[in-house]
Amino acid sequence: MAGQRIMNVPRFREHMERAGLNAVVLASPENVFYTSGAMITTQRSLRDRLAFSVLTAGLDAVFVVCNIEESLSRKASWIPDVRSYVERKEHPVDALASALREKGWERGRLGYEARFLPAGQFEGLRQALPQATWVPADDMIISVRAVKTPEEVERFRNAARTTERAIQDAFVRARPGDTEKSVNDRIMINMLEGGADSLTHSVFGTGENALHAHAVPGSHPLTPGTVGRVDSGAEFGGYTSDLARSVGVGKVPDYMLDAYKRLRAIERSTIEFLRPGRTGAEVFTFCKEAFARQGLKFAMPHIGHGLAVLGGEMHEEPNLHPYCKVPLEAGMVIDVEPFYWDWDRKFALHIEDTALVTDKGAVILSDATNTEELFLIT
Amino acid sequence: MAGQRIMNVPRFREHMERAGLNAVVLASPENVFYTSGAMITTQRSLRDRLAFSVLTAGLDAVFVVCNIEESLSRKASWIPDVRSYVERKEHPVDALASALREKGWERGRLGYEARFLPAGQFEGLRQALPQATWVPADDMIISVRAVKTPEEVERFRNAARTTERAIQDAFVRARPGDTEKSVNDRIMINMLEGGADSLTHSVFGTGENALHAHAVPGSHPLTPGTVGRVDSGAEFGGYTSDLARSVGVGKVPDYMLDAYKRLRAIERSTIEFLRPGRTGAEVFTFCKEAFARQGLKFAMPHIGHGLAVLGGEMHEEPNLHPYCKVPLEAGMVIDVEPFYWDWDRKFALHIEDTALVTDKGAVILSDATNTEELFLIT
Repeated sequence: MAGQRIMNVPRFREHMERAGLNAVVLASPENVFYTSGAMITTQRSLRDRLAFSVLTAGLDAVFVVCNIEESLSRKASWIPDVRSYVERKEHPVDALASALREKGWERGRLGYEARFLPAGQFEGLRQALPQATWVPADDMIISVRAVKTPEEVERFRNAARTTERAIQDAFVRARPGDTEKSVNDRIMINMLEGGADSLTHSVFGTGENALHAHAVPGSHPLTPGTVGRVDSGAEFGGYTSDLARSVGVGKVPDYMLDAYKRLRAIERSTIEFLRPGRTGAEVFTFCKEAFARQGLKFAMPHIGHGLAVLGGEMHEEPNLHPYCKVPLEAGMVIDVEPFYWDWDRKFALHIEDTALVTDKGAVILSDATNTEELFLIT
Repeated sequence: MAGQRIMNVPRFREHMERAGLNAVVLASPENVFYTSGAMITTQRSLRDRLAFSVLTAGLDAVFVVCNIEESLSRKASWIPDVRSYVERKEHPVDALASALREKGWERGRLGYEARFLPAGQFEGLRQALPQATWVPADDMIISVRAVKTPEEVERFRNAARTTERAIQDAFVRARPGDTEKSVNDRIMINMLEGGADSLTHSVFGTGENALHAHAVPGSHPLTPGTVGRVDSGAEFGGYTSDLARSVGVGKVPDYMLDAYKRLRAIERSTIEFLRPGRTGAEVFTFCKEAFARQGLKFAMPHIGHGLAVLGGEMHEEPNLHPYCKVPLEAGMVIDVEPFYWDWDRKFALHIEDTALVTDKGAVILSDATNTEELFLIT
């Protein structure tokens, strides 16, 4: 085996058999990475440079990539059968169809990503392989990915802790009057210096700017008496972090400090509530009721999510929202992120941590810094 | 008008009329940003959080976004008619279909992005609006975007110059023995400190690691006598940079220095060849012949590309490859990037600059640093 195999093989086999698929055709960056082990960075910057990882339940597999990415793919992937197409001369969908025919899978029940594969490419594939039966397999592969292997858990833990420290260091260095952008830049720099290969997101807003769900940090200076919040993440060898922290500037009104303590209590009790068998909707309802118990107004459409590989599709099932019927399982890695908006007094607070679901309760993976009190920039 | 309007309005109108479209439905991050002016960062990290910018030739427009992104969208976009859906409760495609019906466009000829819109979403849209005629509009909107407004040119120039300086500074600071990753991190940090909002890519490889088209920079130390190459880019207010530079470590063999000089001569003569009316294929052929004139082996599938907004789809038509029939026009911003692999002697060189096509010839926008000689890390 040349490259790495990170996927949860027994779970993949079980799900493939349950879905009755002869093979599954995966095209999204996260699923190609997860199933092939190869990270093809241009998949994410050149939409037409398609890559396909095709696997049976028994891991008979073929990997179709642009010839420009062939040497890297052979080195990084555990799949020995790598085939390449010449960009713009051959159509990637034709190369995929040839591979499927050679494998004898062209009359089978084939899974595909209905929520990713572009309509035009799918049409081409259907025409090239008229005898195949195409079955949306988005939810199946997401469910496979949701239960992490022990090695994956360690990667998520490392990503989370590094990101926490990156945020904490930026807060410690910051002074009133610094711009939001300078603090946000420092967080991103810290994540890179801590080993991140790329950044997925980092948004820092203070005062009224923090009220937008995903504010763009600008030249706004940190102003005493205000609070702010950051939501940052990066990729570490394909494994992502996604954490939020709140911060105050100078002397902060007591009602803001009080709201922070209440929000953190809500977060911790919700994390404790994560148990195998409980659904995303049940966790959502628990959190919503915890807001009520703490006397804070609740206005969130979701309060957390599973954590995925790569940054292209970061929220993964189970999502903690009112419509999620997916039950938690041991081995899932879940972010809990209660958010509090006070539109009247114009401030917002956010805290997000990463937890591993186990049979004995949740274990917080983002445990490198102490978030009991609101950190104050002075 | 609340937010910014960056698009090339006369060209959009002309292309919409030529295509005979009643409206065009845009869903990809780059086209939503280009036509609405709003950058919705979660469009790129949450695939199912769809946003749609729908416009007629006369700029009657509607903007459909997730309610979480509504306040930001209203602030950032020039489109006054913003409609929102509640994630997971309502399907974004249903919200789009309602908006199209209310506008009376549901029986029209509607453009869509066949190479972006996922097959499942397109199927939902077709079922919701059975009387519409759907026409792939990917190439049309790419052609609109290809001719930049003067303001866009300034944004690309600023992005290019900042990126050049970021690379140059990292090379100046580097010492033999430093790791590839540390140099690459410095480049990324410099781009952020120079004003980048996010990074699109940065790959730095030396010695044999440089032979992969998109190497992952690792703990490999810079070794005297080798050459390396970096390809970096970032987003500055949605406008991207994409530049490559080569570098030597310590005392470098003369044949490497000589190959660099030849490669740069090839690059400059190809940039000079960029003139309105010449096709991407003609520029490719010129460059290929320039390799032959310089006595360097040529193995590139493409030698450059138009530069797009955002980093999700960075190569834009006209692409400089053998099959590109798109003629250059004044106002296009083109990257020229000859790459030289020497598989026998195991080294690679790359140089990429950004140029504006004008009626009087090409103007190099990435002109902040001098690339005449190979920079040497000592």
